[in-house]
Amino acid sequence: MKIHDISTPALLVHLNEMEWNLHTMASFFAARACRLRPHFKNHKAPLLAWKQIRVGALGMTCATVREAEILVQHGFEDILIANEIAGEEKPRQLAELSRMASVKIAVDNSASIRDLAAAQRNAGTQIQILVDVNIGMNRCGVQPDAIAELARYAHEQGLAVRGVMGYDGHLQVQSPSPERDEIVRQGSAVLSQAARTLKGMGLDIGIVSTGGTGTYAVSGDYDGITEIQAGSYLLMDTSYTARHAPFRRALTILSTVISTRGSAFGVLDCGIKAISGERGLPVLRDLPGAQVTALHAEHALVELDPRQHLKLSPGQKVELWVHYSDGTVNLHNCMYGVRNESIEEVFRVEH
Amino acid sequence: MKIHDISTPALLVHLNEMEWNLHTMASFFAARACRLRPHFKNHKAPLLAWKQIRVGALGMTCATVREAEILVQHGFEDILIANEIAGEEKPRQLAELSRMASVKIAVDNSASIRDLAAAQRNAGTQIQILVDVNIGMNRCGVQPDAIAELARYAHEQGLAVRGVMGYDGHLQVQSPSPERDEIVRQGSAVLSQAARTLKGMGLDIGIVSTGGTGTYAVSGDYDGITEIQAGSYLLMDTSYTARHAPFRRALTILSTVISTRGSAFGVLDCGIKAISGERGLPVLRDLPGAQVTALHAEHALVELDPRQHLKLSPGQKVELWVHYSDGTVNLHNCMYGVRNESIEEVFRVEH
Repeated sequence: MKIHDISTPALLVHLNEMEWNLHTMASFFAARACRLRPHFKNHKAPLLAWKQIRVGALGMTCATVREAEILVQHGFEDILIANEIAGEEKPRQLAELSRMASVKIAVDNSASIRDLAAAQRNAGTQIQILVDVNIGMNRCGVQPDAIAELARYAHEQGLAVRGVMGYDGHLQVQSPSPERDEIVRQGSAVLSQAARTLKGMGLDIGIVSTGGTGTYAVSGDYDGITEIQAGSYLLMDTSYTARHAPFRRALTILSTVISTRGSAFGVLDCGIKAISGERGLPVLRDLPGAQVTALHAEHALVELDPRQHLKLSPGQKVELWVHYSDGTVNLHNCMYGVRNESIEEVFRVEH
Repeated sequence: MKIHDISTPALLVHLNEMEWNLHTMASFFAARACRLRPHFKNHKAPLLAWKQIRVGALGMTCATVREAEILVQHGFEDILIANEIAGEEKPRQLAELSRMASVKIAVDNSASIRDLAAAQRNAGTQIQILVDVNIGMNRCGVQPDAIAELARYAHEQGLAVRGVMGYDGHLQVQSPSPERDEIVRQGSAVLSQAARTLKGMGLDIGIVSTGGTGTYAVSGDYDGITEIQAGSYLLMDTSYTARHAPFRRALTILSTVISTRGSAFGVLDCGIKAISGERGLPVLRDLPGAQVTALHAEHALVELDPRQHLKLSPGQKVELWVHYSDGTVNLHNCMYGVRNESIEEVFRVEH
């Protein structure tokens, strides 16, 4: 099957670039004690996750109980949900998953601990938790001075405290610099120190997790950090590319021109139902000077640079680099793995 | 089943408000020659589309061949694809659908006409088209002075020319005013005149379609306009509400608080994978002074107004008014129809 035969709009994974990313990241961790636990939320494709495991990843990170369930259903055995849950239903689901695989979940408050403990009692299983620490992103996570108290409470409630984590999302989007890297190390230091404190309390702390595609190289070298939860590196997107040199853009949307007006304007059949504009507009591939000027629900509007003497014609297929991979993959049920204009693999996206 | 039992994040249709919108719009058209052909792309839920048909809608409008296929599969017989297609595959699919239902499609260029004609010949079916006219939005549509030539070409190629359409999307988002309404009428006049011209050429023109939730009341009263393709009116969203008084917001996301920090900050389990931020941030329901300040992939960040003495607690469920219904419904597989805190119906969203 050739690219040209795919019904548009469709998500393409350029295999040469994806594999380059896969092996580049694997090489980094091959030489270190720290391991990679890639984030599943980025691609939600079990076949891609297995590729990551096969080149050395320790297990998978994910963001929701549903994603953990997908991973368990696809045979993954070591899973970290790097996010909080609360209430009745999600803890109950987690307790059930804990029968089938080693699933760890982040915790940053005592209400969630009580909910998890209740679910664990009802199911008769053991829930494993990581204390989630706010290392400066100011989203989830306890303040560093409250780590020990929260861990003690979780332990008293019967949860198995397995480690600490902290996500420095605010630093992922900054270009590397000595100043930024020093802030990354300060976050890693907080986590590393927290792990020592909890070990001193007699807790069986095996995991100290942090980092992402923008910071793995700094945290991955920090003493005491045992694993990195990067995800975007595999497919990359134009929002990450400018800042993180070692990885290559691998993800495009294949689209069809459905209308033109004059020689400088065209409309594509991919709007925000197929490609996320949440973090910015996509960039056209192989059309120098052409720009996506707006995304509507079902359309992308394109303006051409008259100096380039390019032309768009209805029926023509064009590719756009995905600007925000997380939000875009979420809109699709599969991705086509392509090499030399042929489709070699299809990666099902699970929801 | 009660609202509280639904797993979050989940999309809720408040039935009292949805039904009020349904009947308010139906009443408008009950008194007029112009008919409503609601846009399916907004809710993609066949059960909601049937409600619209049952109160008088003529048929359904949609945006893609896939949506037309869904409608055919659910028994709808009179369908307008108010959008362009080009290439081989989509015209082939359309030709097949044309065996099973009366499907009309918009056309604005001769390349698409050739593609449709080829597909029609191969399938041995009759494809019906509407000439799509640019009435000022500057997206798709031929210029008014090219309508007759394009219609003649389509007719010569063997396509059945059934009417004209033009979408004034740029006017939907403007508040009604005498000046805006006059521009709406100018667009309707172009379409009405085009229909007369094409009839004068001997073509069997039955459809003159335009308008949306923001302009239906103006175009629906314009002589010669036979149908309106409004969609958002049924579920509404906060982006439309401010501008279009007669309809009520009916669509919320149910979400769970998963983390808090201090008394003025909380994190919800609904990010841009569950609620679109493409046109702006959602607004919290029943939490005066509380604001969503950011949407991340999996999280909404909420700040409380300390003067309101409200508190968020992990596990608590809250509702957010959907700001952009098109983009949000697209992220879900079902919507829960709720009344008095109970779930009365579930509307499957088809993709």
